[in-house]
Amino acid sequence: MAEWKNLDTLKAYEALEASGRRVDLREVLAGDAGAKRVREYNVPMACGLSFNYACRQVDEELLGMLADLAEESDLKGKFRDLYNGGVINTGEKRLVLHHLTRGQLGDDVTADGKDKREFYKGEQDKIAEFANKVHSGEISNEAGEKFTTVVQIGIGGSDLGPRAMYIALDNWARAEGCHLMDAHFISNVDPDDAVSVLDAVDAEHSLFILVSKSGTTLETLTNEAFVKDALTDMGLDPSKHMIAVTSETSPLAKSSDYLAAFFMDDYIGGRFSSTSAVGGAVLSLAFGPEVFGSFLSGAAEADRLAACKAPLENAAMLDALIGVYERNILGYETTAVLPYAQALARFPAHLQQADMESNGKSVNRFGEPVAYKTGPVIFGEPGTNGQHSFYQLLHQGKETVPLQFIGFRESQTGRDVDIQGSTSQKKLGANVAAQIVAFACGKEDSDLNRNFDGDRPSSIIVGDRLTPESLGALLAHYENKIMFQGFLWNLNSFDQEGVQLGKLLAKRVLAHETNGALAEFAEMLGI
Amino acid sequence: MAEWKNLDTLKAYEALEASGRRVDLREVLAGDAGAKRVREYNVPMACGLSFNYACRQVDEELLGMLADLAEESDLKGKFRDLYNGGVINTGEKRLVLHHLTRGQLGDDVTADGKDKREFYKGEQDKIAEFANKVHSGEISNEAGEKFTTVVQIGIGGSDLGPRAMYIALDNWARAEGCHLMDAHFISNVDPDDAVSVLDAVDAEHSLFILVSKSGTTLETLTNEAFVKDALTDMGLDPSKHMIAVTSETSPLAKSSDYLAAFFMDDYIGGRFSSTSAVGGAVLSLAFGPEVFGSFLSGAAEADRLAACKAPLENAAMLDALIGVYERNILGYETTAVLPYAQALARFPAHLQQADMESNGKSVNRFGEPVAYKTGPVIFGEPGTNGQHSFYQLLHQGKETVPLQFIGFRESQTGRDVDIQGSTSQKKLGANVAAQIVAFACGKEDSDLNRNFDGDRPSSIIVGDRLTPESLGALLAHYENKIMFQGFLWNLNSFDQEGVQLGKLLAKRVLAHETNGALAEFAEMLGI
Repeated sequence: MAEWKNLDTLKAYEALEASGRRVDLREVLAGDAGAKRVREYNVPMACGLSFNYACRQVDEELLGMLADLAEESDLKGKFRDLYNGGVINTGEKRLVLHHLTRGQLGDDVTADGKDKREFYKGEQDKIAEFANKVHSGEISNEAGEKFTTVVQIGIGGSDLGPRAMYIALDNWARAEGCHLMDAHFISNVDPDDAVSVLDAVDAEHSLFILVSKSGTTLETLTNEAFVKDALTDMGLDPSKHMIAVTSETSPLAKSSDYLAAFFMDDYIGGRFSSTSAVGGAVLSLAFGPEVFGSFLSGAAEADRLAACKAPLENAAMLDALIGVYERNILGYETTAVLPYAQALARFPAHLQQADMESNGKSVNRFGEPVAYKTGPVIFGEPGTNGQHSFYQLLHQGKETVPLQFIGFRESQTGRDVDIQGSTSQKKLGANVAAQIVAFACGKEDSDLNRNFDGDRPSSIIVGDRLTPESLGALLAHYENKIMFQGFLWNLNSFDQEGVQLGKLLAKRVLAHETNGALAEFAEMLGI
Repeated sequence: MAEWKNLDTLKAYEALEASGRRVDLREVLAGDAGAKRVREYNVPMACGLSFNYACRQVDEELLGMLADLAEESDLKGKFRDLYNGGVINTGEKRLVLHHLTRGQLGDDVTADGKDKREFYKGEQDKIAEFANKVHSGEISNEAGEKFTTVVQIGIGGSDLGPRAMYIALDNWARAEGCHLMDAHFISNVDPDDAVSVLDAVDAEHSLFILVSKSGTTLETLTNEAFVKDALTDMGLDPSKHMIAVTSETSPLAKSSDYLAAFFMDDYIGGRFSSTSAVGGAVLSLAFGPEVFGSFLSGAAEADRLAACKAPLENAAMLDALIGVYERNILGYETTAVLPYAQALARFPAHLQQADMESNGKSVNRFGEPVAYKTGPVIFGEPGTNGQHSFYQLLHQGKETVPLQFIGFRESQTGRDVDIQGSTSQKKLGANVAAQIVAFACGKEDSDLNRNFDGDRPSSIIVGDRLTPESLGALLAHYENKIMFQGFLWNLNSFDQEGVQLGKLLAKRVLAHETNGALAEFAEMLGI
């Protein structure tokens, strides 16, 4: 078993700290050497993607030290322990098995008396069968008509990931003729959220998916009640319009309130559940089980690469290592995710959860405070939109914000227009290429208001086209990056105790069991 | 005229730095004194909103020093210079007149030979007349049928603000029976963005608004061409489906390609243009001119309060002052905007532009580098969604992130469900009250993984209900806060030179005039 140690106890980290070596991007990117660097600082990823880190602030010497860090921290061994079924979520004493939803990297993993790969695959097959029946009309509404729309009711990991993936494949599926059902999402306990979705959909032809692992998430149960009331008011039978995705031990599992129930378990954290039944049900219904299968195979291919030992052949590990260097040695506090693809509009919001909820912690996996910085703040919006918004600060603000660009050579639909000698897709690509270099190299100007210091780091993941496969690979890249960073920081990246206190106090407010400041705020909000 | 000085040359700032005084929220919020503090640290805002800063890390002594800072920096005088038509955008030698789009706070302002208040009001009236004709069917499509849908084509300030405001009022307008047209937005140069909007709307009954101040924004002109091609392919005449919002000097102003043109000018920055014709056209078409008028009157009321001298009666000024204290004395790098209202889903994205593009700068208004920190990174998502996502880091991460909560006592639609003894709206309110106190007061636990340090600062703006008036007041609050912070930091908050280099390099890429690293990246992206 791998040994868990704090980052600042590792010799390789001490060496990194002591070296004081710094790379100035303006120097290393100049001239022919710069062009060579761009060609060489490039790691192939799954599904034809590649990870280019020419504009991260590293060089051969620093990369060597980071490789030493990976070795000493035994990142490969820790990942192996994880996928072989080790109790990596130590706080909650749980296995961490989201990789098994899309493939098997190591030993058979048995838990709760079951082979877990078979369990996840079995649920996926059940969903596929169900989705096919919905698409064929064998499963239909009470009037015997086909369901046209699917509405996911869930929050956090049961919302952000599946929603981001649905949006990511929406246009692609239309272009490919496999857009089978529209999907909508209800998440917020704000009643106006449910109202606006219910007003927008044709409820009579809608299938609702209630997603809650525990079956006790207050927001989700409240929204379920909201939807059931609305259906009943329309003279519909809610139990003919609802399915559940939950754990086998939850109160929802055997309820007659649902047409069907599909299962996940405690070994899959919400934020890593897009490839489980949580994403599987909605995506299989919207685009068909084959599309969901392609998405899984892209993720599986990325997972296999993440199991490589050498950081220079393992983009997720390399991205993680450089990120830790930026956070702990260079001191950068935030990271921006900037996809040059409108389809990835909500991908940054998903990564915001995946990353900040996993690694936004101050104690190590043994419950001891750590002295070093951990996960950064993550934010982002699609380019080119962001260029006309917050890029001003990224270019000329007082802080350095490392950037994670994503770009594709082709659009999803192929429909385009040629203006001023180039297509929109070429303009999009030209913009991301331009931005990377603008950030890294800057431009001197005697008018300092027009001066760009440069030396602002970024990397880019480039692919041919955003498809189910490449989306799966992209998702797994970030999931694995987050996992490796958690290993380096010696965190338990798989619990989220930081969300508990708010829940507890909210209950007290609703029970009117408050005093002092809390009572005042409750009154202010009209409770 | 007010005198422009760097923050670190002000005696009041030196005093603030020297004092070393710190407030521990856990102490000041304890017991009855804490309850009293919540009641007292509260400033009335426009339209029944209030700004509560009990959980910001200030006390009477620090507030006194901040009031001295406001006085010495002459924030009131600077704002007066601005609304009286001073050349506050010094870099571009322009007046800054967005306040005039919603009221007149001071002297008549004349520019380009016109009374500017009359000009803005005149455009607003022209838009109202046009919108009324569209709603009555007097202006119709080629088949003589009513337009049902409006599609805004714009990017940056021509997109984020109007889009956020439309989303904010969508449910409200449905509930109030004044939802007259659906609105959609095309912004990204990614062709898939235009494709997905065009696939979603009924183009035959759609009116497109082309928004570009200069008439030269490449993304917007490209998307216009995309839309025109699509309309032509459908046998429609684009000039019967399009209006323009631009400046009078732009190539679009007198073009016969548009049914009508409405004007803004160079004195209104894109990010401050929601109350100009840029927001006016789409919002008046979607909800009617009266609703847009109510939105403006809410903003005007907030502006009047922002002209008060005393920070404790001027929420925007107070918010700005405390923000500078947090940024420059306490060293916090990011700020989260957390509206507990699904309708404000895109409000944080709008503020991200408004704030980061205004104050994400490193040189003062005279073009000299400043030694102190300026604008923070802004991000946010609606609560309760965020609670199930990135709040983990906010509660237990290594950095302190000041939080800006927003909450309402009533939902927009009034449609609700009672579960476990409370409505969804009460649950929403209970959650935001609970979060404020959880962040500020924390909770000790011997299991450090379940320990909450507390002392994490926030403020909250509370209102009865999100309406056009209160939305206008909310928007103006933040615009004015950003303005005051720019004054304190001695920045020109009204230009954005940081976006230019990327544009320049993108043109070179498209013209294949590249070499070195840029040529390599261009090739990688298939250009």
